[in-house]
Amino acid sequence: MPEASPAKWHLAHTTWFFEAFVLARAERRFRPFHPRYAYVFNSYYEAAGPRQPRLERGLLSRPPLEDVLRYRADVDARLAGAFEAGLAPELVDVAELGVAHEEQHQELLLTDVKHAFSVNPLRPAYGSPPPPSGAAPAPLAFLPREGGVVEIGAPGEGFAFDNERPRHRELLQPHALGSRPVTCGEWLAFMGEGGYRRPQLWLSDGWAAVASRGWEAPLYWERDGAGWLQFTLGGLRPLDEAEPVAHVSFYEADAYARWAGARLPTETEWEAAAAGAPEDGTFADGGRLHPAAARAVQLRGDVWEWTRSAYAPYPGFRPLAGALGEYNGKFMVSQLVLRGGSCATPLGHARPTYRNFFYPDARWQFTGVRLARDT
Amino acid sequence: MPEASPAKWHLAHTTWFFEAFVLARAERRFRPFHPRYAYVFNSYYEAAGPRQPRLERGLLSRPPLEDVLRYRADVDARLAGAFEAGLAPELVDVAELGVAHEEQHQELLLTDVKHAFSVNPLRPAYGSPPPPSGAAPAPLAFLPREGGVVEIGAPGEGFAFDNERPRHRELLQPHALGSRPVTCGEWLAFMGEGGYRRPQLWLSDGWAAVASRGWEAPLYWERDGAGWLQFTLGGLRPLDEAEPVAHVSFYEADAYARWAGARLPTETEWEAAAAGAPEDGTFADGGRLHPAAARAVQLRGDVWEWTRSAYAPYPGFRPLAGALGEYNGKFMVSQLVLRGGSCATPLGHARPTYRNFFYPDARWQFTGVRLARDT
Amino acid sequence: MPEASPAKWHLAHTTWFFEAFVLARAERRFRPFHPRYAYVFNSYYEAAGPRQPRLERGLLSRPPLEDVLRYRADVDARLAGAFEAGLAPELVDVAELGVAHEEQHQELLLTDVKHAFSVNPLRPAYGSPPPPSGAAPAPLAFLPREGGVVEIGAPGEGFAFDNERPRHRELLQPHALGSRPVTCGEWLAFMGEGGYRRPQLWLSDGWAAVASRGWEAPLYWERDGAGWLQFTLGGLRPLDEAEPVAHVSFYEADAYARWAGARLPTETEWEAAAAGAPEDGTFADGGRLHPAAARAVQLRGDVWEWTRSAYAPYPGFRPLAGALGEYNGKFMVSQLVLRGGSCATPLGHARPTYRNFFYPDARWQFTGVRLARDT
Amino acid sequence: MPEASPAKWHLAHTTWFFEAFVLARAERRFRPFHPRYAYVFNSYYEAAGPRQPRLERGLLSRPPLEDVLRYRADVDARLAGAFEAGLAPELVDVAELGVAHEEQHQELLLTDVKHAFSVNPLRPAYGSPPPPSGAAPAPLAFLPREGGVVEIGAPGEGFAFDNERPRHRELLQPHALGSRPVTCGEWLAFMGEGGYRRPQLWLSDGWAAVASRGWEAPLYWERDGAGWLQFTLGGLRPLDEAEPVAHVSFYEADAYARWAGARLPTETEWEAAAAGAPEDGTFADGGRLHPAAARAVQLRGDVWEWTRSAYAPYPGFRPLAGALGEYNGKFMVSQLVLRGGSCATPLGHARPTYRNFFYPDARWQFTGVRLARDT
Repeated sequence: MPEASPAKWHLAHTTWFFEAFVLARAERRFRPFHPRYAYVFNSYYEAAGPRQPRLERGLLSRPPLEDVLRYRADVDARLAGAFEAGLAPELVDVAELGVAHEEQHQELLLTDVKHAFSVNPLRPAYGSPPPPSGAAPAPLAFLPREGGVVEIGAPGEGFAFDNERPRHRELLQPHALGSRPVTCGEWLAFMGEGGYRRPQLWLSDGWAAVASRGWEAPLYWERDGAGWLQFTLGGLRPLDEAEPVAHVSFYEADAYARWAGARLPTETEWEAAAAGAPEDGTFADGGRLHPAAARAVQLRGDVWEWTRSAYAPYPGFRPLAGALGEYNGKFMVSQLVLRGGSCATPLGHARPTYRNFFYPDARWQFTGVRLARDT
Repeated sequence: MPEASPAKWHLAHTTWFFEAFVLARAERRFRPFHPRYAYVFNSYYEAAGPRQPRLERGLLSRPPLEDVLRYRADVDARLAGAFEAGLAPELVDVAELGVAHEEQHQELLLTDVKHAFSVNPLRPAYGSPPPPSGAAPAPLAFLPREGGVVEIGAPGEGFAFDNERPRHRELLQPHALGSRPVTCGEWLAFMGEGGYRRPQLWLSDGWAAVASRGWEAPLYWERDGAGWLQFTLGGLRPLDEAEPVAHVSFYEADAYARWAGARLPTETEWEAAAAGAPEDGTFADGGRLHPAAARAVQLRGDVWEWTRSAYAPYPGFRPLAGALGEYNGKFMVSQLVLRGGSCATPLGHARPTYRNFFYPDARWQFTGVRLARDT
Repeated sequence: MPEASPAKWHLAHTTWFFEAFVLARAERRFRPFHPRYAYVFNSYYEAAGPRQPRLERGLLSRPPLEDVLRYRADVDARLAGAFEAGLAPELVDVAELGVAHEEQHQELLLTDVKHAFSVNPLRPAYGSPPPPSGAAPAPLAFLPREGGVVEIGAPGEGFAFDNERPRHRELLQPHALGSRPVTCGEWLAFMGEGGYRRPQLWLSDGWAAVASRGWEAPLYWERDGAGWLQFTLGGLRPLDEAEPVAHVSFYEADAYARWAGARLPTETEWEAAAAGAPEDGTFADGGRLHPAAARAVQLRGDVWEWTRSAYAPYPGFRPLAGALGEYNGKFMVSQLVLRGGSCATPLGHARPTYRNFFYPDARWQFTGVRLARDT
Repeated sequence: MPEASPAKWHLAHTTWFFEAFVLARAERRFRPFHPRYAYVFNSYYEAAGPRQPRLERGLLSRPPLEDVLRYRADVDARLAGAFEAGLAPELVDVAELGVAHEEQHQELLLTDVKHAFSVNPLRPAYGSPPPPSGAAPAPLAFLPREGGVVEIGAPGEGFAFDNERPRHRELLQPHALGSRPVTCGEWLAFMGEGGYRRPQLWLSDGWAAVASRGWEAPLYWERDGAGWLQFTLGGLRPLDEAEPVAHVSFYEADAYARWAGARLPTETEWEAAAAGAPEDGTFADGGRLHPAAARAVQLRGDVWEWTRSAYAPYPGFRPLAGALGEYNGKFMVSQLVLRGGSCATPLGHARPTYRNFFYPDARWQFTGVRLARDT
């Protein structure tokens, strides 16, 4: 899969981030650990120079893992030294950004490993299979919410990515929001009614994707004689109908919503509902690495929730200065916003104002569905 | 170019629209003019049955033009008969939609011809070259506009496409809007400062498009020893710096705005400004078929103006019932809204509430740029 | 299909050949009919300057057919004048080459039309359907032929393409040659025994082609409820089992031979057998434009016969001087030799020494199969 | 590069060959080492079941190297046991084929590593750089050789691949053969005279490859301020003009020969000349892993020599029975024969009758050029 990177690349890249954006400015006589690592481990920062084409990351049999671990140890030590020597406040901010950046790659590393294992004929497992989550979820309800002017976005203080700012006012229309995410059992009903075979349910681009890629179910679902199975980070195990559906694209989420007589929420609707909601969901730290049974609210964790909102700058958006300004702003076209965090997200990484974004055909993240309706 | 269709296909397709959506319901003993034309001339209506793949339209050496003209005459006559016999009100509405649909294809036909001629080594001309437009335009000013809740969208009565409805409230942020479109002369300045060579100015997808397609100027611009020329529907002629730039993609428009320290307007900003503005621009009926010199306001006609708004359903959007519901709604992802109409748009076709939409890399329409700024 | 060209392109291209290679050298004050036609209608002669990319030939809505007809009339008249004024002997030779070249394009024009009509949903016909050919052919026999040194290739005098020369000696191994081409009925037996589903029968590249293109039968075969039909230049009509199979690729011919416990002949074997054989087959002049029933010998006409010989220079091969040297020699890799001529070949065009050549996956010519065996 | 495989894949695949084709028939109670390894490590034997797509070999992060080494040790031990217990003669033959097969992969492993290192931005080295080879080679001479009927191919006894048999007679034309391979210095002269920019020198497919891939020199050549460098298995070092040119495609070899007023030899010409020639060249065992200076004869070792002969079955060719019959025969189309062995070939692996084969665009093997001429 072209989006995925090898595990050692993730480790070296997050290390390079600290070296290039903190140490290079903090160390008086900065010398890079290796003169070519900036080329090899830069992901996309044009302002930071040329770099290894993404599709060729998988070819990097060198440097070996040991060299990457030595790189990491070296940068860790120098970073500790820089902190001890007293880091300028703006570099402390960059280091905090580096931590958030690394948390993002921790999630990507898990989802990349899941994908690589899923296409490996040996079907390896990263851990033990997630235990079934038990009882059937309560029926889905649509909770009415009033319209009006609301504020969304991150306030000025505290850590947040630049794309979450500035906090600003939006006009909310009256609507109703699903009481919990859509489950695997509900998705089976969609499939049973020909969900993947009825073009009327799909956006035009979505239907083209169904046809060209042969989608018939969410990613990682497969069928054997006895029923549906699901490939997890713990290997293949039976599908649990009570769990939120995951690994669906925006196109599938949108088609499902149309089939259900509903629509996807906007990011404003989502954030207004999530403001103050408890961080009660399943996150990476729990070790399950798989969504747990659908239940009331569950806005945070378990699965990222597709919104119908295109990823775009907030009114008054200002990217960070310099190369770090490429972090978020340059992707603001053709992608959709997802909200909430997933079972592979480090606990505390995702805020209610957090804006994740992917192309509408992406399926390898833990991406799920919450419904909304006009009222 | 895969988006283009042969001229006779446009003619037959708009004819088929009337036959399939009006006559098939109005005529008591409906028999199609030709049993296979529905397959050949359906564009994308899934609900209306299978169809000729778009990429293979160019292969249709049959039916010949004479047959298409006979098809047209036949449908025209039957349609006149149906009107005389008394058409049900809902079918009158569909016929009106058919007229609007045909007007859209009149514009596409012109832009498809322009493209086909531009890549033809003989460089044919459709008419005489548009005369130079004369005096230099006034300097660009940014006109401040207040924020607040505004209404946009088409009212309930009168013809409009379903995607223009419902009329609804949006929250406008305070901003300033460019007093006229960006000109070719200004675009030359952008190019002169390395506009097409500085990745920091571009969205990531846009920069990839620059690299893979070798963009160095707007479509139809070419250079000879004496300076810049521009291919027009009247053939090749010198670039006129006073005219609004046209045939730029969203990516280019966005990069230009960043270079200019500005941004593209939202569709709400555009529509709020355009409400009540006179239809004073250059439209197809004038016969120039090329933008005329930039001048104050010029919101209507001349060039379509890219907005930063992703094409998405308005709150409460309801597509038309049946196959006609596929007209607009199924394209609501990954495209950007354009506003205003162009020199190839039939006069009176485009309303202030009209939402045109294209993918961010499209350049073969008369697409230009108006700037905006946060205040 | 990327190999095909529009009919008017064939006409203009063969006209250009006479203009560029005869008139340009014969006329004292040569001026081309149109300054850009050399670009538009040059097929592949690098030495004759740049040219329209092959894939874009289909985009040439201009020049219209009338202009091409005027071009033709003009060149015809000037050519007649040049002959009357007395043409240098070497230019008479080039004119003769131009005639042979045009005969090749007459065949290509027919096969291109057949292909374009076959994918047109209206399924147009070029003429009336070829009548069934009647009685069942005699059983296939393998006629033993002795080994030894033989001479093949065109003698020094008389017209032949450069790739047929020099006449030279080859060592023939003892073998046996099929008494007639393989029939459609025999091909049905191959299909019935899983011919298109058994990888062991196929060359590796051939099996990849079967998989990627979904081949299940020869090109232009299709099945309806009642049985197999075949698209012909006279439209769709029932398959005639007595006719030689046509429109199969080298890969299919080779797989069939393996299934039949045989192999394809070498071009030396073919030419040794064909030397002196009567021109008794079906050629374009008869107007049937479809192979006639298989019968004894039939080495000439009806279907081109794939050989196992790669298209390569004969020992001592010398291409013509100048641009005409590109006619044949530059294609001498990765293609296979076919022999004999087809029902779309002008009578008298193909000699026993004639070497046709196509890539192993080509199917749009009338290409068939004759078997051979080691003895 | 899609043709390349990871090092551990080569090791496991050659191991699987012994397991699948020897042990599975020799062991009374055969159980595969791992039930999925046949899928993962089968290369292309259709008769041996489905297999990992070639392009996805690089994704195999599992099994790890340790597992592959255990697999190897297990199969080695079982193979030794089978020999001790007395292996049937036909399985001894298969084991000998397995050794030859492994020798082929030893060469591929080296050339795959060379390629992977060459595109790695760190430019790793496998060993130390090959020392310069010293004195300038003698001028190239063309040694005349008589025509007549000769025998080529492997005799009935002794090990040889099936594609080298049967030994048979061929008719040789009088010709002259280059006294040594073409050198890097001579190749620079070709480049200096516009070799890569003159379409007249190239086959049509070759010229298309030059254009689409941007070839301007042999693979692994690069230029810095001081002159030409060459990437070797010992890293980057200056080009040595005295060495035979390597890493050129058939297209380049053919264009060079045309420029030099010569042609490539046929495989019959090559084998007739090489019969009885000493194994005096540079082979992998010497450890240089790079061609040594060009010198008289040098038919064996150093570089594989492209012939103009398409890879095709010898008269009377019979593939081995069963899956092993897929070893050679199924590739007999669209590839060219190379002769002689290279500096990466194990000593004693390549015989004078040995037929190597690659597609005409392949450059990652040590492929060079010997010239010939008609006389």
